[in-house]
Amino acid sequence: MTHNLLDGKRGIIFGALNSKSLAWAVAKQCVAEGAKLVLTNTPIALRLGQIQQLAQETHSAIITADATNTDDLQHLFIEAQNILDGKIDFVLHAVAMSQNIRRGKAYQEADYNYMQQTLDISALSFHKLLQTAYQLDALNEYASVVALTYIAAQRAFQGYNDMADAKALLESIARNFGMIYGRQKRVRINTVSQSPTPTTAGTSIGNGVDRFFEISDHTSPLGNANQQDCANFCVILFSDYTRKVTMQNLYHDGGFSTTGIQLP
Amino acid sequence: MTHNLLDGKRGIIFGALNSKSLAWAVAKQCVAEGAKLVLTNTPIALRLGQIQQLAQETHSAIITADATNTDDLQHLFIEAQNILDGKIDFVLHAVAMSQNIRRGKAYQEADYNYMQQTLDISALSFHKLLQTAYQLDALNEYASVVALTYIAAQRAFQGYNDMADAKALLESIARNFGMIYGRQKRVRINTVSQSPTPTTAGTSIGNGVDRFFEISDHTSPLGNANQQDCANFCVILFSDYTRKVTMQNLYHDGGFSTTGIQLP
Amino acid sequence: MTHNLLDGKRGIIFGALNSKSLAWAVAKQCVAEGAKLVLTNTPIALRLGQIQQLAQETHSAIITADATNTDDLQHLFIEAQNILDGKIDFVLHAVAMSQNIRRGKAYQEADYNYMQQTLDISALSFHKLLQTAYQLDALNEYASVVALTYIAAQRAFQGYNDMADAKALLESIARNFGMIYGRQKRVRINTVSQSPTPTTAGTSIGNGVDRFFEISDHTSPLGNANQQDCANFCVILFSDYTRKVTMQNLYHDGGFSTTGIQLP
Amino acid sequence: MTHNLLDGKRGIIFGALNSKSLAWAVAKQCVAEGAKLVLTNTPIALRLGQIQQLAQETHSAIITADATNTDDLQHLFIEAQNILDGKIDFVLHAVAMSQNIRRGKAYQEADYNYMQQTLDISALSFHKLLQTAYQLDALNEYASVVALTYIAAQRAFQGYNDMADAKALLESIARNFGMIYGRQKRVRINTVSQSPTPTTAGTSIGNGVDRFFEISDHTSPLGNANQQDCANFCVILFSDYTRKVTMQNLYHDGGFSTTGIQLP
Repeated sequence: MTHNLLDGKRGIIFGALNSKSLAWAVAKQCVAEGAKLVLTNTPIALRLGQIQQLAQETHSAIITADATNTDDLQHLFIEAQNILDGKIDFVLHAVAMSQNIRRGKAYQEADYNYMQQTLDISALSFHKLLQTAYQLDALNEYASVVALTYIAAQRAFQGYNDMADAKALLESIARNFGMIYGRQKRVRINTVSQSPTPTTAGTSIGNGVDRFFEISDHTSPLGNANQQDCANFCVILFSDYTRKVTMQNLYHDGGFSTTGIQLP
Repeated sequence: MTHNLLDGKRGIIFGALNSKSLAWAVAKQCVAEGAKLVLTNTPIALRLGQIQQLAQETHSAIITADATNTDDLQHLFIEAQNILDGKIDFVLHAVAMSQNIRRGKAYQEADYNYMQQTLDISALSFHKLLQTAYQLDALNEYASVVALTYIAAQRAFQGYNDMADAKALLESIARNFGMIYGRQKRVRINTVSQSPTPTTAGTSIGNGVDRFFEISDHTSPLGNANQQDCANFCVILFSDYTRKVTMQNLYHDGGFSTTGIQLP
Repeated sequence: MTHNLLDGKRGIIFGALNSKSLAWAVAKQCVAEGAKLVLTNTPIALRLGQIQQLAQETHSAIITADATNTDDLQHLFIEAQNILDGKIDFVLHAVAMSQNIRRGKAYQEADYNYMQQTLDISALSFHKLLQTAYQLDALNEYASVVALTYIAAQRAFQGYNDMADAKALLESIARNFGMIYGRQKRVRINTVSQSPTPTTAGTSIGNGVDRFFEISDHTSPLGNANQQDCANFCVILFSDYTRKVTMQNLYHDGGFSTTGIQLP
Repeated sequence: MTHNLLDGKRGIIFGALNSKSLAWAVAKQCVAEGAKLVLTNTPIALRLGQIQQLAQETHSAIITADATNTDDLQHLFIEAQNILDGKIDFVLHAVAMSQNIRRGKAYQEADYNYMQQTLDISALSFHKLLQTAYQLDALNEYASVVALTYIAAQRAFQGYNDMADAKALLESIARNFGMIYGRQKRVRINTVSQSPTPTTAGTSIGNGVDRFFEISDHTSPLGNANQQDCANFCVILFSDYTRKVTMQNLYHDGGFSTTGIQLP
């Protein structure tokens, strides 16, 4: 399904690693809808992932950037405007990493250096990209910025660990920067609270993850929203049809968030 | 702006009265996006309003129905399927009326017959239309049903009176019927919590309404969402791009809902 | 545990039926904390229940009233002030009934007369009691009014049926009347969103109710809040320690509301 | 007003600086209710503030601790248990500081070292104190931990800057640690979202702060909750009457959070 919804728009996609990534599907759908893209990820992600393949499929440039490094971000926004020949119309932030999770440290035995890192990579990076874009005046009027999040920001899920805190922080940044960027430049900033999806990041939360996806799917009246669903929804938020939606956390989850106990 | 988003889809629009109505703009945009429509309203609204003009402009049939009357609703859904030649893909509910407001009875001096009527017209009508459609199996798989609401369902606004309660009830019905209809037929049901707009209904809340619109507009970082914005957003919810969004109350308000005190 | 928290306060308790009722435990704890009470319920509840026993144990008068009948409510508030010798300091509303549930009619096959009745008994009764008290000026400054509710007002639970809608309406009434009564008389109005408890009403939602209590208990990090917990919490809301809490829906649920998926 | 609600309980109070501090009033009310306390703050706060006076008035010991330093926290919890002769029953976290605010750096020109510091002092300190207490098993069963927060965690307020993000993070930590600590030790963890109060911290948000307090007071149907109101409410949360309340963010704000636009 394509409707040319992003015809001529210029976008930057953070966080595509491989074909399971949510950002991967978003990038493909954006291009199918007429957008031109710059893809970005860290040097290590470029080495470990398949982003070159995505760049080919979407005729996109890749600009390496560590999203926690403001110099990198500055370079990214300047170069992206050069490559795409104009200001940016939309940005996807799909960046998250927790060493506490990776190394199996439970929430009550957190390593605080790791936790600071979790917050920096998964949430402050969003502030940094917004501040960089703001200071460079790199976004067009009514540009749309979306960050992916999860309902663990509202409810405690076992095993989601400090990523829950990072997502709460991320959503707060969307609101607070959204107020400023909206008022001054009409830029809208939202978060999409997506069903769990079996991405590389999503499956890192550990044991029981399959059962977790199943229960989420069973609880959600429409089932979990999958990768392509997410891509479609992000396209909508990047399009001109949603110009007055800002500072929202939008549940894209098949109804999970408003469904109570489901008997098995 | 049109992108053929509703190509070949069949819809029913409740509540268009005149060119200021939100439903009016939604109907026009739906047709511009390729949909075929049936318009519906009460006999008195047909007499007092300009719905015939809308029917002409959108090449739509009109079917008279009192949304609180299940016989009327049954007739409506059966006839609409005949006219549109198939099951229904989307429905807009934009129906609200309060005799307590109209007759200047404050919330603390409510007439309870009026209040029952407010709830029946503005909220139970939504249950009735859903139940009627459900029992007739009148909606296609992944059909989308939207009802318009206001943030008075979450926060108390002076003068909004028993309409606030009706909107809270309406949103509850969307969640509860959404669970059932989603699980059984993939139908999604959402409410759109719209900025205040100077419709005939919207201006009936009485004194100070101009000032009220201004403060809302000033508080919202992107300003109030207007009638055309609302139409665009409803089209999105009716489209196939939002198939996993259900049981949500979506703020379409320029950021009002997540903005705190704004100094004048 | 008692701390004389309601010393000299005058209260009215709606909805005590038998020793399993939440209102029953609330009444007992209020008296243990120094309050004087009037108990009220419908004629049929008086006949079927054991409220006379409660009246004896708490040295309280009983005034028969149908909470949907404003004449009855007027009589109740006038008489209660006579009996208690002063204006009322606190009120508990624990009134709920659904004929749709009782008669096994699913949400998607609602009888609308029953639904209107559900809303009237379980929600509008709260508006009626507040409006009656307001017009009689029957509540003291900083009086506290509490209604019991359930999280089905926010999330859809299978089998909770139109009671979910009634609870959403009830909570809305608390907010809207709370704004008016607070501003004008300092009266605070809140709802307590209680864990499911095996009351006569609570067990009427039908099959699977035991399993439902278990899952709720398992999900809640502190387990379900029980009848005595509820009584303690209501006492707190009636006390002078919570004078600035109003228009809130307070989850009293062992953490259920903010806990996500729990693996079995 | 005292009711011996904390008779024999042992508490630790973070963040009392001077007589305007919320923590100051909480400490005094706790002692009036029968509790024994240890007070704690940073070396610089001890030097600049009047905490010695509070210690005298409340017969409390002071233990110096930087709440971001886990060694200090460990020492604090060990010493406090020695001094108070047993495990701790309640803790108040009232710790917040933003160099970005202090140095007049707007949200869109954040210094990221300062922002990391804001998060560390105002939010991660809460995780650190909980983790330290957890690992030392320093809290009694059904102990109660409260952190003070503000509604800027939910809605964007001009000038509240990165403190808004810190409060969102703080509330998330309360939920996530609350699930674990509740399940394992029955400890309950909540945040109190307090009206703005003219504390030293509260007035540091800069220009227009007086007007801000006024609008908040005008909007809240019961007016802003003041310092003593806050103390009363915290006592309640520390008491045994609220044993099943956990993982909640409780608005203590005279109804501000659920009130919409108020015409001037």
